[in-house]
Amino acid sequence: MDTWLRTRMHELCDLHGVINLASWDREVYLPAKAAPARAQQLSTLQALQHERLVDPRLGEALARASEAGPSSQALTPDERAMVRVLTHDRERAVRLPARLVTALAEAQGAGIQAWREAREAKRFAHFQPALEALLALRREQADAQGHDGERYNALLEGFEPGMRVQRLTPVLTALRDALIPMVAAIAEVRRPTPAFLDGRAYDTAQQWRFTMRLLEAVGFDLEAGRQDVSIHPFTNSVNAHDVRLTTRLDAVHPMSALFGTLHEAGHGLYEQGFAPELLRTPLASVPSMGLHESQSRLWENLVGRGRAFWVHHFPALKEAFPRELGDVDLDGFHAGINHVAPSLIRVEADEVTYNLHIALRYELELALLRDELPVSELPSAWNERMRRYLGVTPPDDTQGVLQDIHWAWGELGYFPTYALGNLYAASLHAAASRALPELDAHLARGDTSSLRGWLRAQVHSHGFRLPAEERVQAVTGAGLTDRDFLVYLRAKYGALYGVTL
Amino acid sequence: MDTWLRTRMHELCDLHGVINLASWDREVYLPAKAAPARAQQLSTLQALQHERLVDPRLGEALARASEAGPSSQALTPDERAMVRVLTHDRERAVRLPARLVTALAEAQGAGIQAWREAREAKRFAHFQPALEALLALRREQADAQGHDGERYNALLEGFEPGMRVQRLTPVLTALRDALIPMVAAIAEVRRPTPAFLDGRAYDTAQQWRFTMRLLEAVGFDLEAGRQDVSIHPFTNSVNAHDVRLTTRLDAVHPMSALFGTLHEAGHGLYEQGFAPELLRTPLASVPSMGLHESQSRLWENLVGRGRAFWVHHFPALKEAFPRELGDVDLDGFHAGINHVAPSLIRVEADEVTYNLHIALRYELELALLRDELPVSELPSAWNERMRRYLGVTPPDDTQGVLQDIHWAWGELGYFPTYALGNLYAASLHAAASRALPELDAHLARGDTSSLRGWLRAQVHSHGFRLPAEERVQAVTGAGLTDRDFLVYLRAKYGALYGVTL
Repeated sequence: MDTWLRTRMHELCDLHGVINLASWDREVYLPAKAAPARAQQLSTLQALQHERLVDPRLGEALARASEAGPSSQALTPDERAMVRVLTHDRERAVRLPARLVTALAEAQGAGIQAWREAREAKRFAHFQPALEALLALRREQADAQGHDGERYNALLEGFEPGMRVQRLTPVLTALRDALIPMVAAIAEVRRPTPAFLDGRAYDTAQQWRFTMRLLEAVGFDLEAGRQDVSIHPFTNSVNAHDVRLTTRLDAVHPMSALFGTLHEAGHGLYEQGFAPELLRTPLASVPSMGLHESQSRLWENLVGRGRAFWVHHFPALKEAFPRELGDVDLDGFHAGINHVAPSLIRVEADEVTYNLHIALRYELELALLRDELPVSELPSAWNERMRRYLGVTPPDDTQGVLQDIHWAWGELGYFPTYALGNLYAASLHAAASRALPELDAHLARGDTSSLRGWLRAQVHSHGFRLPAEERVQAVTGAGLTDRDFLVYLRAKYGALYGVTL
Repeated sequence: MDTWLRTRMHELCDLHGVINLASWDREVYLPAKAAPARAQQLSTLQALQHERLVDPRLGEALARASEAGPSSQALTPDERAMVRVLTHDRERAVRLPARLVTALAEAQGAGIQAWREAREAKRFAHFQPALEALLALRREQADAQGHDGERYNALLEGFEPGMRVQRLTPVLTALRDALIPMVAAIAEVRRPTPAFLDGRAYDTAQQWRFTMRLLEAVGFDLEAGRQDVSIHPFTNSVNAHDVRLTTRLDAVHPMSALFGTLHEAGHGLYEQGFAPELLRTPLASVPSMGLHESQSRLWENLVGRGRAFWVHHFPALKEAFPRELGDVDLDGFHAGINHVAPSLIRVEADEVTYNLHIALRYELELALLRDELPVSELPSAWNERMRRYLGVTPPDDTQGVLQDIHWAWGELGYFPTYALGNLYAASLHAAASRALPELDAHLARGDTSSLRGWLRAQVHSHGFRLPAEERVQAVTGAGLTDRDFLVYLRAKYGALYGVTL
């Protein structure tokens, strides 16, 4: 690959990393009065990044490089993949008119504002006009970026390259239909909230120390990353040697720190795991948000809410919180952290109910974008589905249709990546368990290295060499499927709740 | 001013701020393994900044803007100053050939490396070839950027715009000649190191809390800035609402945290104090490193080592360190923090001896750049002057000519700004004391607002509207002078040491 093109790739990666640094800093260390100036700085960096990406000289260099064709000796297979990924990003950027970018940014500002006011007033109607404006712009965006008649595909492509509604809908619909009776069966057992999670206060400094222990336990490299505290936990990668996680400390919700850290560590291990030869290139990235989420969910749920993991860690947790957990044993703890209950709020949902929250949002987004659902009817459509899928009814819009910030930004197409994460996680975990028959024994003695090594070799190190589903297919032998996830849920929750699911 | 030019100014300011953020982060929160990647990111940002600065379109826009002439109505006086400052920066950048920039960066890398090895071996000779190479490049740089026959002026201009060797040398020479007998007279008193600073350990968590108290005391806005810990204290401004200070915590040198914080807070107050209408323009900057240093030295020394300040704060300090300061009273503390002793290391020097360290370095830099001193003779020239000015002899080069990192980078022209800072600080403090006759009474009751308000109105708010010396002239009625500084030293140390100076 010619030096000019490689330099431009380095430059774009460096800019991306700096944007992530400035965004991370905004959430953890920014002085209160600096928010407007930081927004300006981020906007300047993004404009520079956009300018470099759409630069016609880059387009020509990429065209020259790909002209050689897939069998050419001029480029290595990795270089061909770099050209492919960057060309794809560039074309999406080029197709977005500057006027639309500005209009979207303005509408997003207004959307956030209206969404906040609507939440304050607990009235969706206050947000409706802003959402209508955002939807109109998203339709324009989809048409500008191109699609096959299904606008949603153009938006989905921004988060889940290669995925299509035609492929996704049957899987999510089948998943939904399998989950509804499962949730109902578990709800019938009527198990109360575990006492150790019902109002007891856990020292936040101890929580912090335990999350640091968990990071070490899963093998997150603290010399190539760090953890800080923020209101909403997130992971920002400045580069593979500088991956920044945050966790949330809340005295009466100690599990949000523990499982939040495991979740972000899953993202972090992925970002730390790219092969050295991919660094500072478009391949040093995760192929999709769904595959990214598969790694966070794998460590948070498949590992972190598993019994084997706590065989090793529960004694230390009890030692850290002797009063709070004095009356809890390993099995009680394992049952407690896997408590299932249909609830109103997605981010607090358990493993079993979670994907129903996603199915609901996905169906509504699709209907909105297809003009099959007027925005004014969104709250009633939401509430009707909540009743049908989960058997609960939001008392007001703030606990219903207004709960997530995604639509406040007009961000459509993101929600399904959460479900894809759960499904991919289960399939990858099943494949890992086949490859590592002793995995639970390793975890039970505190050894996560076999699983981490397997994930690194099979998934992390490859970066964006393949699109997400192709990567999963290469590892598991199958692409997107709800089979492994349902097998996992049935076995685990059937045992925990003593019911056949 | 046309929108395009203003947008470019905003962009350059934003880039500058982001570079400062990434540099700050490198010193305080960067994971160990991320150093090479951060260096690449900073280099990418600097290259972008350089590219935007030397962009011919910017040159044309600036030329058009300044063509209107100083009396044109097309630009406000502030806008004319913006155009002048940015044109000056741009021309210096344009004159530096890319080849020289690269060669300098490489020679600096090699210089740092050789300097570290020379320090390890305590032998200047190991560093000599690298310094010779750096000097050759600095001569080239000076010739490229232009000068009046005195190459040093071209380098000085990078730190102290408008200052010239012809103006500086007489002042620093007179200062040196006044200080030598003063230092000798004080040394004759032979007062020992105060006991409370002779090996007692001060809890570093308490030190930290006290430095936060000091920041509040001087009115550093912690909603528009923050303090963290680093090995070497520094101030980096991300913008006027986001000014980042660091301090150093060392159990047996507690004064380095206290006075380090006051020093950086002085820099920080300047950066926080620009008038709102100057933000995101070239005027939202300090006109020179010397004037910047005047604000740090004013708060560190003229205020912070003054008796009045500690009338208010010493009781709290004693409360924070009851055992360590149990046997110390206010006058003993005041004498202790103003202990004078000729010493080998500049950064540990007191107010009286400090400028002799600078005079020595300035004279040697000038001689090197004029080809009047071969690099091989630098250590002996250093040691000879140390004896003559301070009466001490370095036992080895590490405690002598190799002590500062500046020459390891080939950075010539910076040292005199420290002396300028001390002189400007004394002149500004004298002017403030004339304007605020009750200043010591304010400080003695913990009120720094009158001084801070005066400095903001007279100095900080103006940013780079005027070059440094013109700003000082406008405030004090006189430009650069050693008079106020010597009057201050004679009064203060004459009283403290009971001698006529």
